[in-house]
Amino acid sequence: MDIKQIGEFGFIEQIADRFKSLVPKSIYGIGDDCAIIPANENDDFVVSTDLLIEGVHFLRDKITPFNLGYKSLAVNLSDIAAMGAEPVGAFLSIGIPKDCSSELLDGFTEGFMALSKKYDTPLLGGDTTKSLRDLMINVTVIGKCPKGKALLRSSAKGGDVIAVTGNLGDSAGGLNAILNNIELNSHTKHLIEKHNKPEPQINEGLWLAKQNGVHAMMDISDGIASDLNHILKASEKSAIVDLQKVPVSEILSSIAKKYDWNAAELAVSGGEDYELLLTISGECATSIAQRFYAEFGKPLHIIGEVKAPVEKPIQWISGEEKLPDFKGFNHY
Amino acid sequence: MDIKQIGEFGFIEQIADRFKSLVPKSIYGIGDDCAIIPANENDDFVVSTDLLIEGVHFLRDKITPFNLGYKSLAVNLSDIAAMGAEPVGAFLSIGIPKDCSSELLDGFTEGFMALSKKYDTPLLGGDTTKSLRDLMINVTVIGKCPKGKALLRSSAKGGDVIAVTGNLGDSAGGLNAILNNIELNSHTKHLIEKHNKPEPQINEGLWLAKQNGVHAMMDISDGIASDLNHILKASEKSAIVDLQKVPVSEILSSIAKKYDWNAAELAVSGGEDYELLLTISGECATSIAQRFYAEFGKPLHIIGEVKAPVEKPIQWISGEEKLPDFKGFNHY
Repeated sequence: MDIKQIGEFGFIEQIADRFKSLVPKSIYGIGDDCAIIPANENDDFVVSTDLLIEGVHFLRDKITPFNLGYKSLAVNLSDIAAMGAEPVGAFLSIGIPKDCSSELLDGFTEGFMALSKKYDTPLLGGDTTKSLRDLMINVTVIGKCPKGKALLRSSAKGGDVIAVTGNLGDSAGGLNAILNNIELNSHTKHLIEKHNKPEPQINEGLWLAKQNGVHAMMDISDGIASDLNHILKASEKSAIVDLQKVPVSEILSSIAKKYDWNAAELAVSGGEDYELLLTISGECATSIAQRFYAEFGKPLHIIGEVKAPVEKPIQWISGEEKLPDFKGFNHY
Repeated sequence: MDIKQIGEFGFIEQIADRFKSLVPKSIYGIGDDCAIIPANENDDFVVSTDLLIEGVHFLRDKITPFNLGYKSLAVNLSDIAAMGAEPVGAFLSIGIPKDCSSELLDGFTEGFMALSKKYDTPLLGGDTTKSLRDLMINVTVIGKCPKGKALLRSSAKGGDVIAVTGNLGDSAGGLNAILNNIELNSHTKHLIEKHNKPEPQINEGLWLAKQNGVHAMMDISDGIASDLNHILKASEKSAIVDLQKVPVSEILSSIAKKYDWNAAELAVSGGEDYELLLTISGECATSIAQRFYAEFGKPLHIIGEVKAPVEKPIQWISGEEKLPDFKGFNHY
């Protein structure tokens, strides 16, 4: 095992093959946002788990305890949303250093509970331990969806359009603002809030999974430059994405201009937006986008097309012009 | 929230009440070894999660990578065993510091996989992240048992006898040997192996759950002085435990004598034995113990009796003599 490759491919993905022979045919294991475990004639359970570590995923003095609790559950619920599933319950493991204040733990609990209530996700169990130095939080979420209806990364078809459920790059802009101690005003605060308190697209995911013509879906955690590759690889396809159509908020555009950031690069490579990335049959796309707007009061943004597989997985364009590649976010 | 009380009561247990109103009646949430989620007409799913942190639960240079992988899954499978359930699959989150060798990750994977194969527990998902300093491992395990048949902590009845599935204290003796750099020989190596590579009592748990007369069950992670209290509190009972009947290995006895350790205290307060602690209807106990011996080739040790609730939850005796209290292990 090459530890330098872990960032690129993930330890879990590297060892997945060695466990494959143990996975029964009825279960879908490693390789999507969630594992899928059949429950009964009508339902599948979906399961996902995410680990957040102080100094890597958050800085204790740069996020409010409330938002830390909210985000810890949100990033997991986002995986449930990506399957088109509804939450059943959550499990929280927390490693607490001695210098953690009781105010932090209270605020964390409040934030976790606020999202828990919002999407009916009861806390069903967990584990508390001491940590020597860093605060660490692992959440496992279980969801439920109609049997065989979970939206997989592997279901994209040639001729599908590629869509996203909201603006991209705000979270990465917020992270930039935090790390560079950018002056706080209503705009930078908005971006930081997007980074520290992402909203899982549970209702959007459930709605989209019910529409005929929605094929592949996943959540945007590393940026579409990286995440779309997962769909394309699993579906054995390629794609064209038009940067002019990738939705960027006016706030991000204006702040990016002010501080000389590349807003397009933040939008496609920044990550942690936790919007949904999906592919839709070309003929259904307009109708679904219209009804999506009617349902949620916000646009479903069509940003590209799925193509037959070619050597280069994503061709980036800007209108008529071909662009060079973007890379996704890598924690290592 | 009082952070000093977290060690005693657990953060999860402290916040459980605040989430209670969100838990549907069909689901059993916080309060046992696993949560119980109904799956279908015949089955319940049970779910548990455990976090292991370097410097708190293990020292990287005092456990082989193989045993660390084995133990990470074992402590979780032990919770599945405690419900009388069979494993369905596991989820592994791992935070890896940069100074982690690829040999460690390979060995870890081998050890995890060895136990995974032994008890048909496929790895179904997980998360890999960087960690700044400490290696951290969170495992969530899902199991399955016949509907309504999971063995709860709250089912102990007056007149039950209290039993354990194996020797207690070896693991705590092994930890003593590790922390005090005791000279390695076949005896101390045996104790250290018991600490570093515990065996989940999956087959024993499944078998016991099928016997009429087995009432309450849990696994022994903190030592019976602490763990038995959970059964007594949940069942609103008290107990008498006879130290002379608590099984202690000859190896622990001899090493304890040599180094002036209190073997009885290690046995009841040491923790991490991952044997099962259960209560059995008095009239069935002898027959079940005999059949347990025939099935597993080892005794089921009867160590005490469940009584009507009194102020002092556990009365420790040694034959006819009354003894003072013992306390369980506390990571804080």
